[in-house]
Amino acid sequence: MISLCEQVLTALRGKTLATAESCTGGGIGAAITAVPGSSVVYKGGIISYQNAVKRELLSVDADVLETYGPVSQQVAVQMASGVRTALNCDIAVSVTGLAGPGGDDFGNPVGTVYIGYATEKEAFAQKHIFSGSRDEVRIRAIECALKLILAKN
Amino acid sequence: MISLCEQVLTALRGKTLATAESCTGGGIGAAITAVPGSSVVYKGGIISYQNAVKRELLSVDADVLETYGPVSQQVAVQMASGVRTALNCDIAVSVTGLAGPGGDDFGNPVGTVYIGYATEKEAFAQKHIFSGSRDEVRIRAIECALKLILAKN
Repeated sequence: MISLCEQVLTALRGKTLATAESCTGGGIGAAITAVPGSSVVYKGGIISYQNAVKRELLSVDADVLETYGPVSQQVAVQMASGVRTALNCDIAVSVTGLAGPGGDDFGNPVGTVYIGYATEKEAFAQKHIFSGSRDEVRIRAIECALKLILAKN
Repeated sequence: MISLCEQVLTALRGKTLATAESCTGGGIGAAITAVPGSSVVYKGGIISYQNAVKRELLSVDADVLETYGPVSQQVAVQMASGVRTALNCDIAVSVTGLAGPGGDDFGNPVGTVYIGYATEKEAFAQKHIFSGSRDEVRIRAIECALKLILAKN
């Protein structure tokens, strides 16, 4: 994980990064900041574990949360765009998913994770369904978010 | 760590918790959310790795940052109070410190960590000087923040 984080930080040299995390609960931020000197690129992030934080700090629409559920492409995109704006960064990633043990009321199975990505020019989210334990799903989600940044930069 | 987090979540039943993290970069949030059902207590947090985030999202005074430095009792207290207000929670903890490898311009040695705590009635911070590697300092800081919540609840 630390090698992946070092690659991300090297790829983002001269740019700034923010994170918005739900099911990973701060794990992306913790992974990136394990690398000395990461503060040059990584400004920080918002851990939006409850929906109220998604609405109030990340400007996720209440209607979107209600219609599509917190674990959805729409919410992942708004989380990424919201944290990018809130922290005034070049690039942002977001994660919202179901690490388990339970699914949600929207029919998503355990392991469903959306990774969002936002810059000034684009904002999108990718859907994944990971297998494994709660810990494994969270680690896969963190790795996937880091790899997405790397693929785009 | 997970057992400590479970104890914290049990102790806080019926209350809400927020975190503001600098040197731990999201590690407290990640530790707490490793426990299934943690969303009942843990609303989320702000990772304020760069000072701009401390100022803009946590309402830490620019003057205080400049005078005492980001690794100070004053900043830890303002971070805890700031995140408690921003996320509208009963209890908040904050961490700001130097995990290494370098010290800062304010004479703090590597391993200096302030843990802040805020409720509606009080706000304070404790100073620690941890030994060990960057990883070890960060883990000690996370444990210390969790133990402080437990001691107060």
